[in-house]
Amino acid sequence: MKPYAEMTMEELEGLEKELRAEYKKIQARGLELNMSRGKPCTEQLDLSMGMMDVLSSEMDLLCEDGTDCRNYGVLDGIPEALELIGDMMEVQYDHLIIYGNSSLNVMYDQISRSYSHGVMGNTPWCKLDKVKFICIVPGYDRHFRITEYFGIENVCVPMLETGPDMDMIEKLVSEDESIKGIWCTPKYSNPTGNSYSDETVRRFARLEPAAKDFRIYWDNAYTIHHLYDHAQDHLIEILAECKRAGNPDLVYKFASTSKVSFPGSGLAALASSLNNLEDIRRQLQVQTIGHDKVNQLRHVRFFGNIHGMVEHMRRHADILRPKFEAVEEILEEELGGLGIARWTKPKGGYFISFDTMDGCAKEVVRKCAKAGVIMTPAGATYPGGHDPHDSNIRIAPSFPPLEDLKTAARLLALATKLAAAQKLLKEKQQEAAGAGN
Amino acid sequence: MKPYAEMTMEELEGLEKELRAEYKKIQARGLELNMSRGKPCTEQLDLSMGMMDVLSSEMDLLCEDGTDCRNYGVLDGIPEALELIGDMMEVQYDHLIIYGNSSLNVMYDQISRSYSHGVMGNTPWCKLDKVKFICIVPGYDRHFRITEYFGIENVCVPMLETGPDMDMIEKLVSEDESIKGIWCTPKYSNPTGNSYSDETVRRFARLEPAAKDFRIYWDNAYTIHHLYDHAQDHLIEILAECKRAGNPDLVYKFASTSKVSFPGSGLAALASSLNNLEDIRRQLQVQTIGHDKVNQLRHVRFFGNIHGMVEHMRRHADILRPKFEAVEEILEEELGGLGIARWTKPKGGYFISFDTMDGCAKEVVRKCAKAGVIMTPAGATYPGGHDPHDSNIRIAPSFPPLEDLKTAARLLALATKLAAAQKLLKEKQQEAAGAGN
Repeated sequence: MKPYAEMTMEELEGLEKELRAEYKKIQARGLELNMSRGKPCTEQLDLSMGMMDVLSSEMDLLCEDGTDCRNYGVLDGIPEALELIGDMMEVQYDHLIIYGNSSLNVMYDQISRSYSHGVMGNTPWCKLDKVKFICIVPGYDRHFRITEYFGIENVCVPMLETGPDMDMIEKLVSEDESIKGIWCTPKYSNPTGNSYSDETVRRFARLEPAAKDFRIYWDNAYTIHHLYDHAQDHLIEILAECKRAGNPDLVYKFASTSKVSFPGSGLAALASSLNNLEDIRRQLQVQTIGHDKVNQLRHVRFFGNIHGMVEHMRRHADILRPKFEAVEEILEEELGGLGIARWTKPKGGYFISFDTMDGCAKEVVRKCAKAGVIMTPAGATYPGGHDPHDSNIRIAPSFPPLEDLKTAARLLALATKLAAAQKLLKEKQQEAAGAGN
Repeated sequence: MKPYAEMTMEELEGLEKELRAEYKKIQARGLELNMSRGKPCTEQLDLSMGMMDVLSSEMDLLCEDGTDCRNYGVLDGIPEALELIGDMMEVQYDHLIIYGNSSLNVMYDQISRSYSHGVMGNTPWCKLDKVKFICIVPGYDRHFRITEYFGIENVCVPMLETGPDMDMIEKLVSEDESIKGIWCTPKYSNPTGNSYSDETVRRFARLEPAAKDFRIYWDNAYTIHHLYDHAQDHLIEILAECKRAGNPDLVYKFASTSKVSFPGSGLAALASSLNNLEDIRRQLQVQTIGHDKVNQLRHVRFFGNIHGMVEHMRRHADILRPKFEAVEEILEEELGGLGIARWTKPKGGYFISFDTMDGCAKEVVRKCAKAGVIMTPAGATYPGGHDPHDSNIRIAPSFPPLEDLKTAARLLALATKLAAAQKLLKEKQQEAAGAGN
């Protein structure tokens, strides 16, 4: 089929009618599918069931330094968990703190502390008239919501092939003292799935922010979440790069095992410079006596070490890879060459970013919903839910079973074609009406 | 032996010499004991080892409504855990939220949210010139530290036999709009061990605060932590009493299983009115996707129900009771009738409150430390660590083995006697010198 844009009005009319009939047929099937969130599927969760067996009443729950994991204390985390998570995050073991079950919570707490108490002795943000954060778009809705919740102005910077537009970021950050941070998912980014290039990371580490309390919020959520064994993205480690660049305190790095072991029952962590960690501990020791050490021990005993964790992630990949590939194949088959959609082909992470023609995303998501397939709301990848092009849709292929996913992907493609045909047809009709006057 | 205050200078000189010799002997033993924190002992922790066996890879981890506990979601907690913890807290199951592992963290987050965003639409505390909190003294140092950390002025109100001085509280709260809350441990209070009388609870529920955003922070940390089967304190349930009094939104109630299952690996929860919970959820859903549901399920499967939990607490009591009684006996034996110390005899909780003569507590703790026994720092039970009488010491009998505890209690008594004798002797000497002028 030829690109829609090259079609005549008559061709579009015929096409629209045909697509509408096809859509009605799918609608009649009464689907109930959900592609809205990056949730692991049941088979992935099953991979970690061994975690339920590694601790038992027959063994002690002492960690290697002799501490009883069952009692109070240990703010930073037990040594063997610091080693495992440090290896996962590619940082030195004394440069991280292990928190509770949610890295989102760790990020929230960082923003909250900066708001109430300031960063390293700088003015608390609540005492400032204006605080801004850079949001790379499309990006992760839950990041944007945290800064929004604190009344922080989210400033959008577009994502490019190589990572965010660094020219814009360098300019913004160096000129505007009210910009206090930037949200990043640098590897297998949410939702675009691409990773920051070496040059991008180097430029991040060399930022010269006007604000002394500017920090990069480096959410390395998909650090070991590859889809392929031999085609993995590799990121320059940001803490080390910042140190080399003479900016050791510039970054907070986040990660969790939410998509390694169990979401909601994993370990989250923050890595940073010793100065930043000292600043953070001043607050943390008021907030809690310590996090769940038994769960830390459980993770260490289950994974053994980073090699065990990497092998475990290969099993995740074996489940996820066919799902990503199925979606990509169907999109290519259905939409390739039509000039009405683009999508990414990530080598890891949890998302495919899908772009309709401008002004069609909301309509496509609506059409999917009316046929029983819930997508992430259009616009969700932009602060305030506002996508200025109304084109971006985040596809989360992980959760539905493969066959359901294929059905959903076909529906998405159909909805995209129908919305595009209707939009183009309307334009042609308006044109024709205009010419007739 | 007669009361020290009735002794002559000569008698005191002889006594002081004798006590000093005895102290040197103990010092030479090189003790290394810790009575500083309310930590369960190893035998107590062993009681919960069955928790490590109740979940296994052979079973599903679905909760009763079919939700897979291994995946994301469920902000409030799984239904069966809400029932168990609701029963523990004596509140309806829809009136609580289960959090992570630390009730301290829940309290911190409440203060933090009130500071940054305000309570139910009222002005955020960070925008106010002055915010005050009432602290009942002696009380829990970690409570005081949270409000201190947020620059809130801690206002002291003394603890009486029946609970805090309600005349003072009623006056303060009704006259001063800057007073936004009060820290309470109403049952087996930390450190006094007594519980609020029915009248005290009724008066709490009928407070008429000048500040609309005033809340009672009701930390029911020892709700089922009795030492005796047949001599238990019972508290009027505060949420229900507030509702009856027409003040349904007046209280946040906190509890955890830290001293039921494992400290650091338990469940913490907040109970309140539906209005307050709605206000809280607006923040919570920005902060996290959900807490550790697998651990919630583990608790439910281990305890079964509230009866199982109560039986479990009887086993805790069997371990703790002899420790409390040993300390009380030794103190009575060593200090009874001397007029130089008072102490409480709690029927539950984790602490005995011990009062030396005015001006002696710091010296007693110092003397204990120099003989190898670490006590909670004198003054810790007052905001800022400042006990105006320098008399209160918190005794935490739970952690040391019984024999060690006895040794430590004898040392504490000896240090108390020595400090008192030295203080009185000095006074007599100064008196004599004054009379000679």
